Amino acid sequence: MPYRAPLADYDLLLSLVTGYGRVAATDRFADASPDTARAILAEAGRLAETTIAPLNRVGDKTPARLENGIVRTPPGFADGYRAIAEGGWIGMAARAENGGMGLPMTLATAVNEMLAGACLALQIGPLLTQGQIEALEHHASEALRSIYLPKLISGEWGGTMNLTEPQAGSDVGALRTKAEPLGDGRYAITGQKIYISWGDADFLPNICHLVLARLPDGAAGTAGISLFLVPKFIPDAAGNPGQRNNLSVVSLEHKLGLHGSPTCVMQYDGATGWLVGEPHKGMAAMFTMMNNARLGVAVQGVGVAEAAFQQALAYAEGRVQGRTPTGRAAITDHADVRRMLASMRAQVFSARAIALSCAVAIDMAAATGAPEWQARAALLTPIAKAYGTDTGHEVAQMGVQVHGGMGFIEETGAAQFARDVRVTTIYEGTNGIQAMDLTARKMADGGAAAFALIDEVQAAAEAARAALPDLAGDVWNAAEALREGTEALLRQDMTDRFAGAVPYLRAFAVVLGADAHLRAAHAAGGARVALARVAIRRLLPAHAGLLAEAREGAAGLYALSAEDLAA
Amino acid sequence: MPYRAPLADYDLLLSLVTGYGRVAATDRFADASPDTARAILAEAGRLAETTIAPLNRVGDKTPARLENGIVRTPPGFADGYRAIAEGGWIGMAARAENGGMGLPMTLATAVNEMLAGACLALQIGPLLTQGQIEALEHHASEALRSIYLPKLISGEWGGTMNLTEPQAGSDVGALRTKAEPLGDGRYAITGQKIYISWGDADFLPNICHLVLARLPDGAAGTAGISLFLVPKFIPDAAGNPGQRNNLSVVSLEHKLGLHGSPTCVMQYDGATGWLVGEPHKGMAAMFTMMNNARLGVAVQGVGVAEAAFQQALAYAEGRVQGRTPTGRAAITDHADVRRMLASMRAQVFSARAIALSCAVAIDMAAATGAPEWQARAALLTPIAKAYGTDTGHEVAQMGVQVHGGMGFIEETGAAQFARDVRVTTIYEGTNGIQAMDLTARKMADGGAAAFALIDEVQAAAEAARAALPDLAGDVWNAAEALREGTEALLRQDMTDRFAGAVPYLRAFAVVLGADAHLRAAHAAGGARVALARVAIRRLLPAHAGLLAEAREGAAGLYALSAEDLAA
Repeated sequence: MPYRAPLADYDLLLSLVTGYGRVAATDRFADASPDTARAILAEAGRLAETTIAPLNRVGDKTPARLENGIVRTPPGFADGYRAIAEGGWIGMAARAENGGMGLPMTLATAVNEMLAGACLALQIGPLLTQGQIEALEHHASEALRSIYLPKLISGEWGGTMNLTEPQAGSDVGALRTKAEPLGDGRYAITGQKIYISWGDADFLPNICHLVLARLPDGAAGTAGISLFLVPKFIPDAAGNPGQRNNLSVVSLEHKLGLHGSPTCVMQYDGATGWLVGEPHKGMAAMFTMMNNARLGVAVQGVGVAEAAFQQALAYAEGRVQGRTPTGRAAITDHADVRRMLASMRAQVFSARAIALSCAVAIDMAAATGAPEWQARAALLTPIAKAYGTDTGHEVAQMGVQVHGGMGFIEETGAAQFARDVRVTTIYEGTNGIQAMDLTARKMADGGAAAFALIDEVQAAAEAARAALPDLAGDVWNAAEALREGTEALLRQDMTDRFAGAVPYLRAFAVVLGADAHLRAAHAAGGARVALARVAIRRLLPAHAGLLAEAREGAAGLYALSAEDLAA
Repeated sequence: MPYRAPLADYDLLLSLVTGYGRVAATDRFADASPDTARAILAEAGRLAETTIAPLNRVGDKTPARLENGIVRTPPGFADGYRAIAEGGWIGMAARAENGGMGLPMTLATAVNEMLAGACLALQIGPLLTQGQIEALEHHASEALRSIYLPKLISGEWGGTMNLTEPQAGSDVGALRTKAEPLGDGRYAITGQKIYISWGDADFLPNICHLVLARLPDGAAGTAGISLFLVPKFIPDAAGNPGQRNNLSVVSLEHKLGLHGSPTCVMQYDGATGWLVGEPHKGMAAMFTMMNNARLGVAVQGVGVAEAAFQQALAYAEGRVQGRTPTGRAAITDHADVRRMLASMRAQVFSARAIALSCAVAIDMAAATGAPEWQARAALLTPIAKAYGTDTGHEVAQMGVQVHGGMGFIEETGAAQFARDVRVTTIYEGTNGIQAMDLTARKMADGGAAAFALIDEVQAAAEAARAALPDLAGDVWNAAEALREGTEALLRQDMTDRFAGAVPYLRAFAVVLGADAHLRAAHAAGGARVALARVAIRRLLPAHAGLLAEAREGAAGLYALSAEDLAA
């Protein structure tokens, strides 16, 4: 099934919905005019369609494997990776002084979506490298930056994130990996890390691991964690890969999906590492990186949803079953199949709009330093991540359903999308963690950022009311319900908030998605109105039930003991 | 992960919720007293726990394979199958005159759920044999019945259903398999059938295929289809397997899940078959079988949901992450994890209650012949099938989520539940087909059966109002909304109904589930009240959004062309 880059959506979203024009109007991103942006996305789209998409089935059928301690990647992955690197796509948002293109995160986000939609298992590698670049740019010493950033930005070397240990998943503070100072600015890192995506690859001359570990004087919990850069090969004086470090890939995980992506158990046996940022401030450094990585994962979900939708639509258009009043018909003509396809399409657009709005906010924050944009980016990040990846999961599963019996047969490829995307709701902070972040940290401003966004939704609805009265009215009312739900949330204690965090986040996302559809319909008319009607009349009504659940609080849940549940 | 039979739920549901006492009070089922029922279910539960459940991972890791035309089943499956057969469980609802136990479908349904929860890939075989027994009991000649039923009921031989062809899935009428009369009461069957579960097995001395095919004078479409019994080995005069028939397994499908279950492409090359029922009335005969098979598939979903829930709960109880006010805690103590587990538990109970209510209606219809019970059974069948299997899918996926990163690792087993159960929303009539059946055929009575059921829900809510005022009020109001939604549905044309059929069915199921929880809470008190609160305050509010979508009609969907969707 060929993948087609969703350039029309980007065009519409950047020009008329998310306000990308404001980004291009800043000094920092003056080079990224809307026309330039269009050309960049078209170029990345071609790469995704022609070079990367054909690797998707290959990776599933020929999993990465461990051979004498070296990870052998699937056939073609090396070339695909190099094509991404040589196009400059890994470092497109990195600062120019280290070889990056300095382009807006908005464009990087769209490119990441396309590459993920084309081949998620491969795209994870470059995405993690982007995260490492971001972390080093913000927190590493000049010495480290000058050695590592050019190689990472060019894609010659790869980067990984090492947080999780068997007993320390969402609870990062429980980690046990140790860092011993060697007295010369270097540290000896010892411990085991799990779920390390792209922890090794046969075609990369060096792989740089960002590892969370505890110094001897580090306190218990997250306050005592530091961040270290631990390369597979220690760069020599010329900056080339030198001495082999004391680290190894112990095993690869046997996973539900993403077979082409090596998920490694990493062992560090006194491996040489360098401190990144301040001692004991590793979590703060990691969070810089994770925020943008969360947006990257958001569009992994969106990208796979897009690809799964395209495949389901193509299948349905070619599948003749049953009759309509005008004779035998492709199943797209049956109302229920059309409902599924239209819902998938509408949901993908919603999730994409939220992710790009988040990226615009990140860019505006970077370009202007305005706290309002920083708050907007912080608010949207967990929503984009959770809704984007839930959309990936739900749309891919609906794609299986559209295929009927063929959906359950692996050769079709529909099931692969569902298997591959499944982990995105879990990694980079589970979607439950995202929802807790939204309802706690992101509401620490008393709801100011949330209310400001809801105000904008209602203002856009007012602006559209004359042209699209019923749709605009629905969106305005749902935004008002979200406002009341947010006020109710702010009156709850943290446990009550957490008991309703996931449905609250979902309600927020459904309202924001409807807002994006309304803006698109208002600005572009035509088929965008019909699609907005699907989003607003069919998907938006769920917000009320979600907000009702969010108000319910925790008491009812804690009234059931684990023994009660097991009974 | 050990599986534990949910006997407490059955006890509560049979005694206090679904009215099983009425079944046991009929002459036909007088032997199946509540005490006897309890003993039977406990015995089946032991089999599921001790003998069948250990096979679940084996089947996934050692898929069925085709070897020189013979299907080799996973290690242990032969013994597991024989244990099910020797316990009499395959024929437990079959009529006594052919060796069955003549027990109520209600008990068979509970047993089927337990066996499916223990090992779905294995349980499909006996379930399909049950369907064949049912079809032959109703439609086959005395000669065929006397030869085949004893062997099928004892489980010595297996039975399959052959409907689907590559171009004929949901559109059964498009099939091309031919049946040529041989003039001696036998027919030569020629054609290819796909997705034939348990089409062959190395441990079964004979396998009997029920095959839909068209006679030379058969009209186009479903009106010209006849049903044939086509055994692998033609029984000799003594009724033992004799001459090999001209049929073969061409290949096995490579599937997302159910690796232990052989899914065959069957080739019939002038295979000898016998007509079952009247010529050209094959669809009617198949529907007899499919209705009960749909209930069987419903509890496949419930069973896997139960097993996935149990595994997730056990994992969460043992997984320590983060802190609560009282110190480090298992993740069950975190509100969001508890929300997931409580929702899973509540949803499983809802789906189980609906399936058992459907089974009670089938039994009452069989025992009394009352059209009201027939109508109730007909109404509940598509709801039970779609909601039971959606529950299987959703709960298994939530089970993956509870496991966090471990959920994506195959060794954990959580992903297997999600993979295995995925097909249940597709086969035996996709859930979209179920919803169309509900909103068209099952509303052909002008909604009489639906309104009668809604009346009962409201009466039960009235009865509970004094004891549980808020919960009873919520259920009464939701039932009223369902009544209004049903009235609105009845005013729609078929295309509009079909455009909202899936959300309408879901709303119906959510209300029925809440009703069951309320009855259980009212009758049993204690923790059942807390669980009902989860179902009614957290899950039930979704009904309003679903009914809103159901009212939306088809026009908005058809306003989007396939080209619009692809743009």
